[in-house]
Amino acid sequence: MFTPGDAARTTHWHPPYLLYLGNAIDDLAIKTARGLAHWRPESCVGQYRGPDCVPTLGLRDMDWNQAKAEGADTMVIGTANAGGVMGPQIVADAIAALDAGLNVVAGLHQKLHDNPGIVAAAQRNGRALFDARTPMGGIAVGNGRRRSGRRLLTVGTDCSVGKMYTTLAIERSLRERGCKADFRATGQTGIFIAGAGIPVDAVVADFISGAAETISPARLDGGWDLIEGQGSLFHPSYAGVSLGLLHGAQPDALVLCHEPGRQHMRGLPGYALPELARCLEANLEAARLTNPDVKAIGVALNTSGLPADQAQATCREVADLLGLPCQDPVTMGVEAIVDHLLSCFAN
Amino acid sequence: MFTPGDAARTTHWHPPYLLYLGNAIDDLAIKTARGLAHWRPESCVGQYRGPDCVPTLGLRDMDWNQAKAEGADTMVIGTANAGGVMGPQIVADAIAALDAGLNVVAGLHQKLHDNPGIVAAAQRNGRALFDARTPMGGIAVGNGRRRSGRRLLTVGTDCSVGKMYTTLAIERSLRERGCKADFRATGQTGIFIAGAGIPVDAVVADFISGAAETISPARLDGGWDLIEGQGSLFHPSYAGVSLGLLHGAQPDALVLCHEPGRQHMRGLPGYALPELARCLEANLEAARLTNPDVKAIGVALNTSGLPADQAQATCREVADLLGLPCQDPVTMGVEAIVDHLLSCFAN
Repeated sequence: MFTPGDAARTTHWHPPYLLYLGNAIDDLAIKTARGLAHWRPESCVGQYRGPDCVPTLGLRDMDWNQAKAEGADTMVIGTANAGGVMGPQIVADAIAALDAGLNVVAGLHQKLHDNPGIVAAAQRNGRALFDARTPMGGIAVGNGRRRSGRRLLTVGTDCSVGKMYTTLAIERSLRERGCKADFRATGQTGIFIAGAGIPVDAVVADFISGAAETISPARLDGGWDLIEGQGSLFHPSYAGVSLGLLHGAQPDALVLCHEPGRQHMRGLPGYALPELARCLEANLEAARLTNPDVKAIGVALNTSGLPADQAQATCREVADLLGLPCQDPVTMGVEAIVDHLLSCFAN
Repeated sequence: MFTPGDAARTTHWHPPYLLYLGNAIDDLAIKTARGLAHWRPESCVGQYRGPDCVPTLGLRDMDWNQAKAEGADTMVIGTANAGGVMGPQIVADAIAALDAGLNVVAGLHQKLHDNPGIVAAAQRNGRALFDARTPMGGIAVGNGRRRSGRRLLTVGTDCSVGKMYTTLAIERSLRERGCKADFRATGQTGIFIAGAGIPVDAVVADFISGAAETISPARLDGGWDLIEGQGSLFHPSYAGVSLGLLHGAQPDALVLCHEPGRQHMRGLPGYALPELARCLEANLEAARLTNPDVKAIGVALNTSGLPADQAQATCREVADLLGLPCQDPVTMGVEAIVDHLLSCFAN
């Protein structure tokens, strides 16, 4: 029997989770853990905070033995730091978690599997290690063949404008309406949330579109694959990833994501953000290569930098400009966007 | 002192070369060796052909000891086969070459460095091994900052339409005219010919544009970096590589490469080739992100599938259509294209 979830399951660890915050110094450092706690609260039994940890997720504090006793299966190292380094404290804590009987998953650049002490602890306890940033092997080169099923991809004017959040919000809305829908993760945090996926920015360049094809295989159940976008066609550092993902995703529907007021492309002060209409048209034009029938179905704005009344006004302006529903998924939800999606693909 | 050649020298082996053809069954299997023999004949002392080898490069046949006696420094495994596999005969011959005192370089998917017997032979003989398909470490993410120097990039309607050949022909023409010009290799054969370069299709996806920036660093000597293009913005499997390369190359000049009469995109029977004008405009539009002043300066056609009179007529038609000089670099040279390049960038 066809199970799209399994076909896309390229990594696999299991809830319930203990979220490891270590000695994080600020909220940014626990962004990944926060995403998991927000989108999969039922999967998170608690948090582990080191003695110098500043932020909190508001979950119950517990150590490894308590987490194990509460039924936790896996400790998620959901912290980020400069360079993705796995410092000595993280190593020691990972070993302690393994010794307490937990599996461990991490998304740092430095790999659990490259640390002999961690590998030895996993072996002596019969526990599993997962490096979420290591792409699976055996991804094929993209073939561009039209495949069945419906796919939505979020695209952006820039990096970090809310593509993952928007995609997950659409999954939740579709599921609440009784539609089959599966979030397909392409980045670290998304992979933690989905428990599966491929970090497309970490695959070998020749395999970007192949990776997108792999995580959203043909489906015959009438449901939607909702594919997390990455980067932007207009980001000079990462546009190749965005284009390969766009071609491989073969999307039927695009949602454009944007943060009003951003002064320049992320990390590149010399580069202005593209105009919304131009950015959307460039994405549609490129997407037509593998799906000539692609449609734009909505715009998601991150208005966190605007006063509430201005946020509403900005959404109305953008909706008028592009002729599409426009909402901030965090403060306004995505119902108008999902309404339009379903009306565009009613048959 | 600034030496652009050194800055881009990411791998380094040295002529003179013995070209290893092994037991190649046809001309396609020795395409890489043929490229090297064609573009760097002064660097090739001879060829080694196994007992079952069918094709020849027309070089003198010799074994490893003869090659060493004739001054060869390095054996180049310039064969290709399905899957890039390094079979037992290649392994045995690589070891024999090392034992005869040659260094060995190969561009197969399977690596010399992953074969314990080859590594041991290199160690006991104090010889070096180079895997041309392994990207250097330490490539940074592309930063998109405008850099000095002039750069030309070949772009294509498809894969394998003559981008490398065209780029090398332009290098030769510019050098014959007394201009400083350096071919910058981005693929396996080009890297063999240049003795340096980065296989951009083999880098991690986030680093495509960074790799292009690395191989064509800022230069202040008034010379040209001539960057070998890869793939096509219109190839569903590889367009991400092409876009990242286009952004990172920051080209001042584009040359469009095309093979008239090709029935579909390489490897993808369902995909027609893009129209020339549309393909060129899409490349210019994308290139403007990192260099708003980019210009198209010529078209290179591979007319090997056409009768000679039709080839000339086709070039005239394309020249009229696009308003650019159009030549087949193999049969007509690239002088009209280089004339136009120099007139466009006279100051």
